[in-house]
Amino acid sequence: MSLSDVSKRLLLGRKLRSTQLGETLLPKRIALPVFASDALSSVAYAPDEILLTLSLAGLAAYAYSWKIALLVAVVMLVVVASYRQNVRAYPSGGGDYEVATVNLGPNAGLTVASALLVDYVLTVAVSISSGVQNAKSVFPFIDGHEGWVAAIAALLLMALNLRGVRESGTFFAIPTYCFMVGILGMVGYGLFRILVLDQNVQAHSAQYGIEPDPRFAAFNGFLMVALLARAFSSGCAALTGVEAISNGVPAFRKPKSRNAATTLLLLGTISVTMLIGVITLANLTNLKLIDLGHSYYTLNGQRVDVLEETAIGQLARAVFYDNFRPGFYFVIAATMIILFLAANTAFNGFPVLGSILARDGYLPRQLHTRGDRLAYSNGILVLAFFAIVLILAFKADVTALIQLYVVGVFVSFTVSQLGMMRHWTRLLKTEHRPEVRGRMIRSRMINAVGLTMTGTVLVIVLLSKFAQGAYIAIIAMAVLFVIMKLIRRHYDAVAQETALVEGEDRMLPSRVRAIVLVSKLHKPTARALAFAKAARPSTLEALTVDVDPDETARLKKVWEEMGIDIPLKVVASPYREVTNPILDYVKNVRSESPRDVVTVYIPEYVVGHWWEQILHNQSALRLKGRLLFTPGVMVTSVPYLLSSSDKAERRMRRDDVPDVRRSLHR
Amino acid sequence: MSLSDVSKRLLLGRKLRSTQLGETLLPKRIALPVFASDALSSVAYAPDEILLTLSLAGLAAYAYSWKIALLVAVVMLVVVASYRQNVRAYPSGGGDYEVATVNLGPNAGLTVASALLVDYVLTVAVSISSGVQNAKSVFPFIDGHEGWVAAIAALLLMALNLRGVRESGTFFAIPTYCFMVGILGMVGYGLFRILVLDQNVQAHSAQYGIEPDPRFAAFNGFLMVALLARAFSSGCAALTGVEAISNGVPAFRKPKSRNAATTLLLLGTISVTMLIGVITLANLTNLKLIDLGHSYYTLNGQRVDVLEETAIGQLARAVFYDNFRPGFYFVIAATMIILFLAANTAFNGFPVLGSILARDGYLPRQLHTRGDRLAYSNGILVLAFFAIVLILAFKADVTALIQLYVVGVFVSFTVSQLGMMRHWTRLLKTEHRPEVRGRMIRSRMINAVGLTMTGTVLVIVLLSKFAQGAYIAIIAMAVLFVIMKLIRRHYDAVAQETALVEGEDRMLPSRVRAIVLVSKLHKPTARALAFAKAARPSTLEALTVDVDPDETARLKKVWEEMGIDIPLKVVASPYREVTNPILDYVKNVRSESPRDVVTVYIPEYVVGHWWEQILHNQSALRLKGRLLFTPGVMVTSVPYLLSSSDKAERRMRRDDVPDVRRSLHR
Repeated sequence: MSLSDVSKRLLLGRKLRSTQLGETLLPKRIALPVFASDALSSVAYAPDEILLTLSLAGLAAYAYSWKIALLVAVVMLVVVASYRQNVRAYPSGGGDYEVATVNLGPNAGLTVASALLVDYVLTVAVSISSGVQNAKSVFPFIDGHEGWVAAIAALLLMALNLRGVRESGTFFAIPTYCFMVGILGMVGYGLFRILVLDQNVQAHSAQYGIEPDPRFAAFNGFLMVALLARAFSSGCAALTGVEAISNGVPAFRKPKSRNAATTLLLLGTISVTMLIGVITLANLTNLKLIDLGHSYYTLNGQRVDVLEETAIGQLARAVFYDNFRPGFYFVIAATMIILFLAANTAFNGFPVLGSILARDGYLPRQLHTRGDRLAYSNGILVLAFFAIVLILAFKADVTALIQLYVVGVFVSFTVSQLGMMRHWTRLLKTEHRPEVRGRMIRSRMINAVGLTMTGTVLVIVLLSKFAQGAYIAIIAMAVLFVIMKLIRRHYDAVAQETALVEGEDRMLPSRVRAIVLVSKLHKPTARALAFAKAARPSTLEALTVDVDPDETARLKKVWEEMGIDIPLKVVASPYREVTNPILDYVKNVRSESPRDVVTVYIPEYVVGHWWEQILHNQSALRLKGRLLFTPGVMVTSVPYLLSSSDKAERRMRRDDVPDVRRSLHR
Repeated sequence: MSLSDVSKRLLLGRKLRSTQLGETLLPKRIALPVFASDALSSVAYAPDEILLTLSLAGLAAYAYSWKIALLVAVVMLVVVASYRQNVRAYPSGGGDYEVATVNLGPNAGLTVASALLVDYVLTVAVSISSGVQNAKSVFPFIDGHEGWVAAIAALLLMALNLRGVRESGTFFAIPTYCFMVGILGMVGYGLFRILVLDQNVQAHSAQYGIEPDPRFAAFNGFLMVALLARAFSSGCAALTGVEAISNGVPAFRKPKSRNAATTLLLLGTISVTMLIGVITLANLTNLKLIDLGHSYYTLNGQRVDVLEETAIGQLARAVFYDNFRPGFYFVIAATMIILFLAANTAFNGFPVLGSILARDGYLPRQLHTRGDRLAYSNGILVLAFFAIVLILAFKADVTALIQLYVVGVFVSFTVSQLGMMRHWTRLLKTEHRPEVRGRMIRSRMINAVGLTMTGTVLVIVLLSKFAQGAYIAIIAMAVLFVIMKLIRRHYDAVAQETALVEGEDRMLPSRVRAIVLVSKLHKPTARALAFAKAARPSTLEALTVDVDPDETARLKKVWEEMGIDIPLKVVASPYREVTNPILDYVKNVRSESPRDVVTVYIPEYVVGHWWEQILHNQSALRLKGRLLFTPGVMVTSVPYLLSSSDKAERRMRRDDVPDVRRSLHR
């Protein structure tokens, strides 16, 4: 069973129960890597962000790094505990959007949805950018071209997804476990060398001093608080992706909720261990990071220009490069791969969320139906487009992108926890069994703590990052919210306009008057005439526009010679145009007998290539578009299949088989 | 009568005789400016090109300027004499394309057409660029931004034409006569001041020396010949536009051919007079022009950087600025305006030629029908796009653009003269009256001289300009030629494939099986059901796809409650997609009774805004596209007009009224 099926299945929840997808369920050891790649991958950049933000205040501030990491860890554990309640309450895998919509109403749901859509774009941008930053440790020539390299990587990922990559659970499991082994192994071996073997393991950047940002150099009072808040907010990037498991409950083996909850706890523990481990090792190896352009490396008091490596790159180099070189490459490779996998999950999740929103009338309806490769492809293109815009605009600078990233996640966390509070309160109203009530009250307590915590972090994030870039994310969310709201309003208005009203005029039209449009007499026309005749309309006539008198005369002659028993009407066109004379004629027919339906038969060429489409049917298409605006008129296309259409049909059929079906057929 | 009507009428020739356009015919005094603006306007840049090309060899070469101008004048008069024969032989106004096609076959015609299409683009680019260069005399701040200013001017012209500018003959006549009066007045007054009053009239650039291009500094032997050839080729730009009158014969008062021939001679005389006049005055005032980047102005042996003015700008300044300032502004303004008018004629001619080519199957057929604003607009957009690309690529540098320009004109001249030779030879075969034969032989002689002359100039132009840029024009012509050839081949293949063959199977389908597609039960569906029922098909059923079991159940319930007497079939869709289950079902119905026709009714929303279109009908459109590929299936769109469609209908109707009709209604 492919992963894409799983993740689609999860998010779509109940809807898919009827299909045969339901058979294979994931054991915890596969479910963990499948859902955790996004969450775990954020360990690749969260420690960097803590350290380089602190660097703005110089070396002294580094003393706070482990405290901030601990704080992030605490938030992580609280969020995990809260989501364990979500998982139990909503085993359908509806995710935060469902929790918010059900408990707090459509506006809350739409807020979460806007935040999630923006976050998918940022997941792609941040993950790929971080992957490229890490790649610099092995390919230093990337330095200075990060933006373009990351944009090309995003394009590749887009192309893969457009072609339809199907990863199996195992495909995800191996790199995720590699990443865990790599990071934890590096931390373990590093600590072993330092603490047990008492070796002097130093990061490359240990030799440098830091020239702080002059604004923060004093590092006291309000500015210090602001800087620590910013470092903490950036560190909270480690929490992105935690909510994925709550969307995935239906994919777990039974007992689903319990297994999901256990996996969530496992994920939280591993994440926290890795985060604290990396920060500890960074402190022990005197690793330094700078926020280039604001703080600088110094050597003997002079600014130096060094290739900036990520924390993981520097640590892997310090721990493994001279002792066990393969370990260095392994850690870098695993980090790069898990970051690209994290970006890939966004490519899977974005169209799925779009489909749910379309179902609820917030996005164009055709996005709802699965198997529509076109809609799915559009989702991938839109996601890739905005991600690439961000990557290029911020030159793949993870630090700059992170300023936009964390807001959405915490909006989603906070609204979801508020929803869960409501959920328990509502259930408690009707529940009377004391032992159940006890459990509910306990759950509500946990969600209350979660709400307080995530809400506080959201406020901190907003305050410390708004001007740094978070405002861009917030504007994007607001725009999405308004657009989706307007789409829904439009659909509602149309539904009201088109609703059948009891007792309203449902008079049946009495007769059908058929008109076959004729430009010349060839097989397509002959077919249209035959089909129209077979339909036995009340009246039937052929209509041609006299654009060229010679041609019209020729047509009339052939018409008579072939003995066609359908009258041929010729309408004049003094201005050598086609559309208006036909429209006028049809309107006239219609007004002569308003109770009849007029059906206009248009012979159409069916061709195989897009460029053939340009050469044919353009007038027919235009005419059709205009005829549809005439009340009481139907337009019937009578296709004539040119030989080139044959291959195209097979090609389309192949392309059109939905991913799901194709992957099952393998 | 508007000019656009005239020019369209001319090129379309016989085709339009039936319309009421035929009444108004042009007297010579109006016909001259109407058809001559393009040809006369080239006097604005041809002398410049002669002088600045010669400047590459330094001041000594300027001695050749009047000889080259004389040579150009001779070519001009020969071409005029030749075209007087064209005008007599083809009074229908078919132009070079007709002459070449009729006498030399379709490939020759297509060659001329390719050359003319490329030339229309260059007419716009060169005329606007030259207009902007002339404007610098009054608005010196344009210097350095010519490319952008010219591009904006082209955009404005495009916008005007898209909106549908309708110039009357008078509108054209006034600036053309102004230009003649301006140039001839300037030359006359200048000569009067110099020769009669014996005043010292000097151009601003008289004070400078010229630093020649080191490659040509020696100015002897082969290089001298090459340079003179280049100067001559560039000077031949004065001939562009001469062929316009031969397209316009039907618009003249009777005797048409004779009046047209007289006007042609008038045009030739005026052009030659203006050209020789400007060159003479330039010589007398010691005017100098440089080819910036290759030759330079010097003062006391040092290169100086001066704002380059055109020849007309410098002469007008020298003759009028201190004596009669309004004269200066008048000349510059008249020159600018006639150049923009010349560009505008291309905007009128390009879609008309496109329409003729579409009639002959070389361009998409829908371009043929007039009154189709869409096709007309597309022509304007394509023309403007390529002209702007050229303007920006060459930074509105007339000298660079001229290298591309002259080729097309002379290809057209040469092929046309060759065609005329054939024409006379063919007629002579059947003509026996000696006095008629005598006239024909004389005409053939003139065309033979014309052919020799234009052919020689074409070779000179190709040799002297190929590497300078003419190759771009030739590649463009070749690409156009091949594309048009391929389009024609495609249409021929389709015509063959669809031709009715005597005795071939024309079995009529026996019955019609109707299927109405239903997603939910609302007014659009109700209407489709009612219309389908009114058509009294042999069998009638409603079809829905079970994408969502809840919704399907609801639909079934409402169906029963409302007592609809049409059976509702539900097809399963395990993968939540719509297209394939319906296709499979329809194919099944069709294969059950292959002699029947299946007609699928699709309810469609008709909406007023493009964004509403995105929100509706997308699945229907896709489905329709796929259904048309199924043999024996008709697709009937049953429109449901939403209230927003009302305004759109009126808007379309207004936009759709063809230019011709609109201008007549004024």
